[in-house]
Amino acid sequence: MNWTQKHLLGLEPLSAEQINIILDTAESFREVSTRKRKKVPTLTGKVVVMMFVEPSTRTLTSFSLAARRLSADVVSFSKAGSSISKGETLVDTAKNIQAMGIDVIVLRHPFPGAPHLLARELDASVVNAGDGTHEHPTQGLLDIFTMRDKKKQIEGLTVAIVGDIKYSRVARSNIWGLKKLGARVIVCGPATLIPPGIEELGVEVEYDLDKIIPECDVINILRIQLERQQSGLFPSIREYAQVFGLNEERLSRAKDDLLIMHPGPMNRGIEITPEVADGPHSVVLNQVTNGLAVRMAVLYLVSGATG
Amino acid sequence: MNWTQKHLLGLEPLSAEQINIILDTAESFREVSTRKRKKVPTLTGKVVVMMFVEPSTRTLTSFSLAARRLSADVVSFSKAGSSISKGETLVDTAKNIQAMGIDVIVLRHPFPGAPHLLARELDASVVNAGDGTHEHPTQGLLDIFTMRDKKKQIEGLTVAIVGDIKYSRVARSNIWGLKKLGARVIVCGPATLIPPGIEELGVEVEYDLDKIIPECDVINILRIQLERQQSGLFPSIREYAQVFGLNEERLSRAKDDLLIMHPGPMNRGIEITPEVADGPHSVVLNQVTNGLAVRMAVLYLVSGATG
Amino acid sequence: MNWTQKHLLGLEPLSAEQINIILDTAESFREVSTRKRKKVPTLTGKVVVMMFVEPSTRTLTSFSLAARRLSADVVSFSKAGSSISKGETLVDTAKNIQAMGIDVIVLRHPFPGAPHLLARELDASVVNAGDGTHEHPTQGLLDIFTMRDKKKQIEGLTVAIVGDIKYSRVARSNIWGLKKLGARVIVCGPATLIPPGIEELGVEVEYDLDKIIPECDVINILRIQLERQQSGLFPSIREYAQVFGLNEERLSRAKDDLLIMHPGPMNRGIEITPEVADGPHSVVLNQVTNGLAVRMAVLYLVSGATG
Repeated sequence: MNWTQKHLLGLEPLSAEQINIILDTAESFREVSTRKRKKVPTLTGKVVVMMFVEPSTRTLTSFSLAARRLSADVVSFSKAGSSISKGETLVDTAKNIQAMGIDVIVLRHPFPGAPHLLARELDASVVNAGDGTHEHPTQGLLDIFTMRDKKKQIEGLTVAIVGDIKYSRVARSNIWGLKKLGARVIVCGPATLIPPGIEELGVEVEYDLDKIIPECDVINILRIQLERQQSGLFPSIREYAQVFGLNEERLSRAKDDLLIMHPGPMNRGIEITPEVADGPHSVVLNQVTNGLAVRMAVLYLVSGATG
Repeated sequence: MNWTQKHLLGLEPLSAEQINIILDTAESFREVSTRKRKKVPTLTGKVVVMMFVEPSTRTLTSFSLAARRLSADVVSFSKAGSSISKGETLVDTAKNIQAMGIDVIVLRHPFPGAPHLLARELDASVVNAGDGTHEHPTQGLLDIFTMRDKKKQIEGLTVAIVGDIKYSRVARSNIWGLKKLGARVIVCGPATLIPPGIEELGVEVEYDLDKIIPECDVINILRIQLERQQSGLFPSIREYAQVFGLNEERLSRAKDDLLIMHPGPMNRGIEITPEVADGPHSVVLNQVTNGLAVRMAVLYLVSGATG
Repeated sequence: MNWTQKHLLGLEPLSAEQINIILDTAESFREVSTRKRKKVPTLTGKVVVMMFVEPSTRTLTSFSLAARRLSADVVSFSKAGSSISKGETLVDTAKNIQAMGIDVIVLRHPFPGAPHLLARELDASVVNAGDGTHEHPTQGLLDIFTMRDKKKQIEGLTVAIVGDIKYSRVARSNIWGLKKLGARVIVCGPATLIPPGIEELGVEVEYDLDKIIPECDVINILRIQLERQQSGLFPSIREYAQVFGLNEERLSRAKDDLLIMHPGPMNRGIEITPEVADGPHSVVLNQVTNGLAVRMAVLYLVSGATG
């Protein structure tokens, strides 16, 4: 099977086969980042635009390095000082950039569905780098890539996603991808941060982290948005850390080969203790390294599909 | 005739022959942007500095892509956090950057004449990317390039420039360029936004848009600066849209092959309706595409002249 | 002797031989910036990250151009909008960037010792681009390079550093480097801005600029931080200019071949008059040009040591 998608908008619309093509392509690109000369000429003369209407230096850096490692030219287009802040519509801005002769737009936007809108209106490829609380497909892919790399296959794994499930695009992309590939997924967090009806996505819901730890092959800890505390959705940072924070004591009941993942940036001492973050189960930095390979794969595949 | 100018400061000081050299060079570069590999090695190892003291992501992106398409290295130097904000003079800042070994400075600055000052003080080439209300020569050139591309020649065309003529560097650069190439230029807008004495530049002044529409080959609509409204220079956005906004009804009296241009970003529903912006007369996105070719030509020509 | 240091954290820990290796390497790179094609393939496929937690467009531009002139890929990671502003620790942020496969981190940080911390925790090379009031080693090196270039050798030179010695990392790096290479160093400024005990670094302290001028081979004028005035450390800008400002009258008693240096940006009319800044003694722009060669040398040497 060959890749035929022009865009990467989310993991929900992809089949297991399509996800596997991305993972296999990432596998073949991973080696490039270990070379002394970390560069292949694959996308020479192609232009990738980083359109980050919502800022994120970390994801931007990862996508930028991925594009340059493929020898593409990269231009960044942020909100500050741009025509976006002058009241121009997103589609007008994007069509303008497209008219400059570009190949791929990587879009981060606070509104769910913004990349889908661009995909309908543009000839360029669109890659979703996070659209509000909806999806963050390359984060989901790099998480799944890391699990597959360490556990050989996704099918049959028990993966817990812990924290603010309600507002997390990372949770959503993980769920879609993992279910398609045959994992068992448990979501766990305060009842106020678990959206009602999430079981319909095929996941189990659990409110007691200690109860599920012994069964887990992977625990994916989400970042707590400290600003959410004001909303009254959970009582205090301290209580959250006590009930849902991953610490060594809690891990004493875990499998020996449990993987601990975190999309970063970590709040050390809140959702994860420093000992766990830097401990033997943690694959947090592998995720970052794999993120580059996954983003190289995505940019390569969608560019190829555009001709 | 060969190009001998080290700088591009405006269209006022250029001859018709010089303008035509830029347009012809742009013509030859236009094809590069349609290639799969959008890159030529022309300026490899040359350094172009984007010095945008006044922010403009769109013009910055166009110049940056133009420079990279020619394989130049690009560095950006914005006001925020720079020595400019630490009280250093513009000339000191520019001489410092020049001392780092650079070839071209693309300057956008809020003060009319700022690029002329740098051109006197520097050995590097200076390209004016907009100096206050004075000139925006590459915008003028891309407008004229688009007209020439669609209408074959500028001589004899009737071009209306509509809107805030008083504060518009785009209007000024258009007027200088179009008059030199033999067009008839009409400026049209509220009396408060037409500077007295503008007839001396060889243009006609008209306050009634409907009256001139049937004669026009090209209408270049300027962006309304919404912040100008507070100044009392025109009564309301709504009234402006009614009297000077380009809509389909108004266009029913236009020539079939009328071109509608806009420098962007557009205020849809104010100076132009969405139907007209996206309609058959509109060449707004062609302008953007041609802007890249024009800027490649300018960077190429001024670099060549510096040796 | 060969270079074996993985990092450049300061001039204090370097030997005279190590400093000379950097200066000699810079000498060999200087010619690249004078070519029409200002680029060598030395660091192709290497990635240099500019991590400027404290902003400095000028130093950032110099390092960026140096890296690109060596054909490295450059990514910038500023504080605004990054995970640093989301409460992540500096080490976590840096380890994350490192996990993306990078070779050198150039760090500017407001806290003294921040680059040393990263150097202990990372496998990548760390270059200190200014850490609080502690050191700014590449500025010290470019100052010394410029003196050596003009005076042939450092040994035996009398160098005065004038101004705010207390808060100046430039002063500190100059002192370390110059003393190791055998210069006589005098620090001169208001008593409130000379740290007690600085004589232990092997420098002489003098409060009367006029007294030392006739003996100096080099005067390195520091920038007055105008915001320091509020602190009561010196009475007024005007008084400072009268007592410590370098003007033509003062220079009438100087040696004919005195060199005047300033790390920029200059406050013209305060610590230096325009006549002196632009006069025959001034090598301010040479410093900037040499800064590029020195930074190319540093990036080249530390990269080699890691690879």
